[in-house]
Amino acid sequence: FAANEMAPHMAEWDQKEMFPVEAMRKAAQLGFGGIYVNPDVGGSGLSRLDTSIIFEALSTGCVSTTAYISIHNMCAWMIDTFGNNEQREKFCPDLCAMQKFASYCLTEPGSGSDAASLLTSAKLQGDHYILNGSKAFISGGGDTDVYVVMCRTGGKGPKGISCLVVEKGTPGLSFGKKEKKVGWNSQPTRAVIFEDCAVPVTNLLGAEGEGFIIAMKGLNGGRINIASCSLGAAHASVLLARDHMCVRKQFGETLSNSQFLQFKLAEMATKLVASRLLVRQAAVALQEGRPDAVSLCSMAKLFVTDECFSICNQALQIYGGYGYLKDYAVQQYVRDIRVHQILEGNDFFIVGYSAGPGNSPP
Amino acid sequence: FAANEMAPHMAEWDQKEMFPVEAMRKAAQLGFGGIYVNPDVGGSGLSRLDTSIIFEALSTGCVSTTAYISIHNMCAWMIDTFGNNEQREKFCPDLCAMQKFASYCLTEPGSGSDAASLLTSAKLQGDHYILNGSKAFISGGGDTDVYVVMCRTGGKGPKGISCLVVEKGTPGLSFGKKEKKVGWNSQPTRAVIFEDCAVPVTNLLGAEGEGFIIAMKGLNGGRINIASCSLGAAHASVLLARDHMCVRKQFGETLSNSQFLQFKLAEMATKLVASRLLVRQAAVALQEGRPDAVSLCSMAKLFVTDECFSICNQALQIYGGYGYLKDYAVQQYVRDIRVHQILEGNDFFIVGYSAGPGNSPP
Amino acid sequence: FAANEMAPHMAEWDQKEMFPVEAMRKAAQLGFGGIYVNPDVGGSGLSRLDTSIIFEALSTGCVSTTAYISIHNMCAWMIDTFGNNEQREKFCPDLCAMQKFASYCLTEPGSGSDAASLLTSAKLQGDHYILNGSKAFISGGGDTDVYVVMCRTGGKGPKGISCLVVEKGTPGLSFGKKEKKVGWNSQPTRAVIFEDCAVPVTNLLGAEGEGFIIAMKGLNGGRINIASCSLGAAHASVLLARDHMCVRKQFGETLSNSQFLQFKLAEMATKLVASRLLVRQAAVALQEGRPDAVSLCSMAKLFVTDECFSICNQALQIYGGYGYLKDYAVQQYVRDIRVHQILEGNDFFIVGYSAGPGNSPP
Amino acid sequence: FAANEMAPHMAEWDQKEMFPVEAMRKAAQLGFGGIYVNPDVGGSGLSRLDTSIIFEALSTGCVSTTAYISIHNMCAWMIDTFGNNEQREKFCPDLCAMQKFASYCLTEPGSGSDAASLLTSAKLQGDHYILNGSKAFISGGGDTDVYVVMCRTGGKGPKGISCLVVEKGTPGLSFGKKEKKVGWNSQPTRAVIFEDCAVPVTNLLGAEGEGFIIAMKGLNGGRINIASCSLGAAHASVLLARDHMCVRKQFGETLSNSQFLQFKLAEMATKLVASRLLVRQAAVALQEGRPDAVSLCSMAKLFVTDECFSICNQALQIYGGYGYLKDYAVQQYVRDIRVHQILEGNDFFIVGYSAGPGNSPP
Repeated sequence: FAANEMAPHMAEWDQKEMFPVEAMRKAAQLGFGGIYVNPDVGGSGLSRLDTSIIFEALSTGCVSTTAYISIHNMCAWMIDTFGNNEQREKFCPDLCAMQKFASYCLTEPGSGSDAASLLTSAKLQGDHYILNGSKAFISGGGDTDVYVVMCRTGGKGPKGISCLVVEKGTPGLSFGKKEKKVGWNSQPTRAVIFEDCAVPVTNLLGAEGEGFIIAMKGLNGGRINIASCSLGAAHASVLLARDHMCVRKQFGETLSNSQFLQFKLAEMATKLVASRLLVRQAAVALQEGRPDAVSLCSMAKLFVTDECFSICNQALQIYGGYGYLKDYAVQQYVRDIRVHQILEGNDFFIVGYSAGPGNSPP
Repeated sequence: FAANEMAPHMAEWDQKEMFPVEAMRKAAQLGFGGIYVNPDVGGSGLSRLDTSIIFEALSTGCVSTTAYISIHNMCAWMIDTFGNNEQREKFCPDLCAMQKFASYCLTEPGSGSDAASLLTSAKLQGDHYILNGSKAFISGGGDTDVYVVMCRTGGKGPKGISCLVVEKGTPGLSFGKKEKKVGWNSQPTRAVIFEDCAVPVTNLLGAEGEGFIIAMKGLNGGRINIASCSLGAAHASVLLARDHMCVRKQFGETLSNSQFLQFKLAEMATKLVASRLLVRQAAVALQEGRPDAVSLCSMAKLFVTDECFSICNQALQIYGGYGYLKDYAVQQYVRDIRVHQILEGNDFFIVGYSAGPGNSPP
Repeated sequence: FAANEMAPHMAEWDQKEMFPVEAMRKAAQLGFGGIYVNPDVGGSGLSRLDTSIIFEALSTGCVSTTAYISIHNMCAWMIDTFGNNEQREKFCPDLCAMQKFASYCLTEPGSGSDAASLLTSAKLQGDHYILNGSKAFISGGGDTDVYVVMCRTGGKGPKGISCLVVEKGTPGLSFGKKEKKVGWNSQPTRAVIFEDCAVPVTNLLGAEGEGFIIAMKGLNGGRINIASCSLGAAHASVLLARDHMCVRKQFGETLSNSQFLQFKLAEMATKLVASRLLVRQAAVALQEGRPDAVSLCSMAKLFVTDECFSICNQALQIYGGYGYLKDYAVQQYVRDIRVHQILEGNDFFIVGYSAGPGNSPP
Repeated sequence: FAANEMAPHMAEWDQKEMFPVEAMRKAAQLGFGGIYVNPDVGGSGLSRLDTSIIFEALSTGCVSTTAYISIHNMCAWMIDTFGNNEQREKFCPDLCAMQKFASYCLTEPGSGSDAASLLTSAKLQGDHYILNGSKAFISGGGDTDVYVVMCRTGGKGPKGISCLVVEKGTPGLSFGKKEKKVGWNSQPTRAVIFEDCAVPVTNLLGAEGEGFIIAMKGLNGGRINIASCSLGAAHASVLLARDHMCVRKQFGETLSNSQFLQFKLAEMATKLVASRLLVRQAAVALQEGRPDAVSLCSMAKLFVTDECFSICNQALQIYGGYGYLKDYAVQQYVRDIRVHQILEGNDFFIVGYSAGPGNSPP
């Protein structure tokens, strides 16, 4: 699917900044709209490990689109996991089929991924919450239908945070300008603005004050998903670099005869394999609810997004001048995964290392 | 000048892919069109060290434009240095005033910066050379007036290469499509194509067979120039990162209170200073014709373009999500200098290290 | 066992350069003399994965001793795997009990780990091979009882190599001086010299000409074993650094309050986990005879020995001046594992990357 | 001198842990006992730049001995600079001639290089200060004659610190055990212990409370000196690696034919040149009293000790197994300069970057 329905279009989606709704709906027909959502509401019911493998594969076809799909999946999973049956039945089937698209609204202009300090307020008035505030860097913002919003219903700190689902068209919901970005151009990014935006109480996910916990649980999966998208880009870049080395001549020989580049490619491949193992291990730990899952997800995010950027960037270097041209895919992988190093901060990374040497692998 | 006439426009030049002819002509009025060209033909007659300082300063305003200006300077210097008086007087004054713009045509589609193996042929017919072949990745190609072209007038290898000046409008001279690139967008890049293109013998720079020597001498200066452009981007990025750290809050404190980021910034500043010293030393060595000038120019190019990319990329990381938006300059520095690591290959880098420990600094 | 019987002595073994025979015999009582040797000749019959876990654990107690034990195990495994029943019964029980100790003789003074070009000759005379040549850097050399020797019985190249077992006391077998080394001091290192050394034909392992294959198969396991010893050192060093950070004060605060060092420690822990996963995956692949086992063993060796050295070296840095004193273990881990980056070269590392993104983990 | 009087002995001094008094006195005859001490008290009156060049050259012969000489020089300079004429005349001539040797006593067991928090107390009683406390990691401690001691005569913080000269033989002055170290073995390291140690008031350098300023000024020079010693080791290691590559064969070719190692060597040489430029620039800035001298000294120390360790460590790697043997010098360079990364902390490193792009080189 990645090779047939996505890769041929990834350059066009990037340069024309197109949100590929139709291609994503085809992906949803394969079950990619709610991969780890329960089947009773339209999900595929697969594991985190399956999810990681799917996102790695899809991102070889287009990182930016896959990264959006992964955010959409996280939203659908949040509603499936923390919502009541009415909420699940109302939202999940459309999301799993990608008839509707979702956005995740956590980050605010002044607070990065620091969830605990967010300012967007939701005040209860009768059977509605009145939202005021704004969210920044929202993937899909303006083009999507369902917004999963972290907001403050109580006092300061993490315990004052709740999670609301806001539907497009709600009065008081508006959007900022479409941002110009280095990459991730197949998904629109806009600020999401709430001005006296009234959201029915029935759209509250979980109880009041549970928003921070929901956000933290989402973050673990989000980190694995983003790391998986980096893997796909790095995998594709290693293959591109290898192929380029076999055809490109310099000083009368193909690059593949350069010992220096052979070693470089071997090093890239090694780092890719190490990255993949870290992601897979974290996915298994998260699936099994292991106590070290948070640490492993953070480690995977930190290591994998850095190393995969480095792999793609070295692949670009092997391409030489061609690597700098938009006719060749390698530069798009570099641009697209650069943001993965920034997203979903490493701030919560906790030095929780205490595992013994005898740990068996997953 | 960089701050007033360039920096305010660098984003627009990038996004609209504009070749800023008027801004460059203003720069030429300050003497930047022929910095190290002799004054009798309109040049500024400054040293390589002066040149390096000027290009570093200009590139804080726009790397891509400055990099083009540096190529233009190299072409003017080639004509000034290797041309006869007629050639010098014909071309240099217009180039120094940037009434005409120059492009340097070395690289070919199949040979990278491997000058010795180039294929573009120039056959003598009467008082004209008939050129056939094509050149790739030509900065300014199609929008410029004077093309300094390396071509093969003799047998295989370096001794068969000569250097011709081809003027725009010459029949048989045409251009490929404008390339879409990751950066360097204020300078158009096109293939330059010669099909039975007749160039007067009077446009031969130096003697037949001297082209390779001219190219090699140009390369030394070109490496310092490009490294200087990387310095400017890194310098500007360090300042931007420092300023951002002073205003941006995360977890209730400005980033400037983060010990980790303080150390990171100190490391970036240290690498910038080391980079600058390498470039300055190489510039002095080249100016003085020291025997280690080639090694020092290569070392400066290798170290500085790598380290400065790393500095800019870390500055982007300090900016977080904002660093990924085209509203902020740091991402443009990253994109623009990425190509400096590719250009003017390190292939000729020769392990010629033998300097003693007692060497005094320049 | 590592904590009780090894760690308390590792400094003394290092500084007095003692070969800890008794401690190793105690280890053998736990089955560590022939971990992956078949039980019918005294081995423990465990898998490569078990072996890796055991060596990681033991090396927290003493890297140098464990590394020797791993070489001894490889020799026992070679005799068990490639020997006939008489050979297995003659040598393996004593080796598994560590009543006798073994050395592996591949490297020659002029050829590093380049097995195919070795020069030590073995000429058949009656029912004996007459060995002439010398081997360099032999762990245990002079203090051990059984030498597994790669030698040339045929023509040039890999197909001329055979594998002989030489017993201590054989006339013509002598040893060079004991080498002074940076680390690995609990195992003596000497040259092993053959001068008309007559070895019975019955000591030939496998057929004539099979030596290279035996060496290559041994190398795969050897790489995992050495990488596992690096893991143990890195694991112990991370724990030491963490503990030191909790007690050591600087500028009025414990080091553990330094954000910079917290991030450094988290990075070290992450690299350790990635390293461990690579080793475990390679061990499983080798056990199962998977076609990518050679690549994975090479990748594990390359990545893990480099990263673990870096981890230990950073732990030393966190210790500050204390890290440089022989009273503290961290410097010994650094010195001991430094040689792992050198051993069993990466020369055979083959760029065999072709695995797809959907690979499931071991 | 380094080649003739030091290099032939460096291995012996290391392995036998000898303090080479006679060799150092020969060095003093060449003026190396007080290089930047004024000539009227026996010094050579040279600049910081000269000093850096001398220490780089000497350390090619023995890093450990040169590093001690540099500490001795700093002590002589402190007395020359901050002492009155009586003190200068009493101590400096013997120190410059290395008839007496000096040690610098700043670091305490609990405080690293954090000068401001030191605890050793000096209480005035009549015309003596009574010292109590202990100093750790003192180079030369026990074998030297003159101890320049930072101690607390007043209240908390930097303003309570003074600088006393304590002579060997003073009652109450004793020494800890000789430390076992990874390197720096030609200089003894001991704790220096003061128990009611009475020091005449006439031995106070500068006024009471000026100790911290003296220490900080010493630190700047100390950082350049230590960085210079790292340069010498790296320079020697690059040459050793180059020579080894020309003679050592692997897979039938000399290592010098390996493209990978050629690039590695070129990279090492480049980093060495960058390191040298940073040290030289800092030395000039310090000599001239430039306002950015502190930043430049810190940058030089940070960058140069790290990069030079990396260079030496890579040279060891190029040596392969031989690099691990004490018969070859490269391992001693690695062990000796490892401590330079730890000494004279980077803690005071201040992010004071503000230099403009147009800065000319020193």
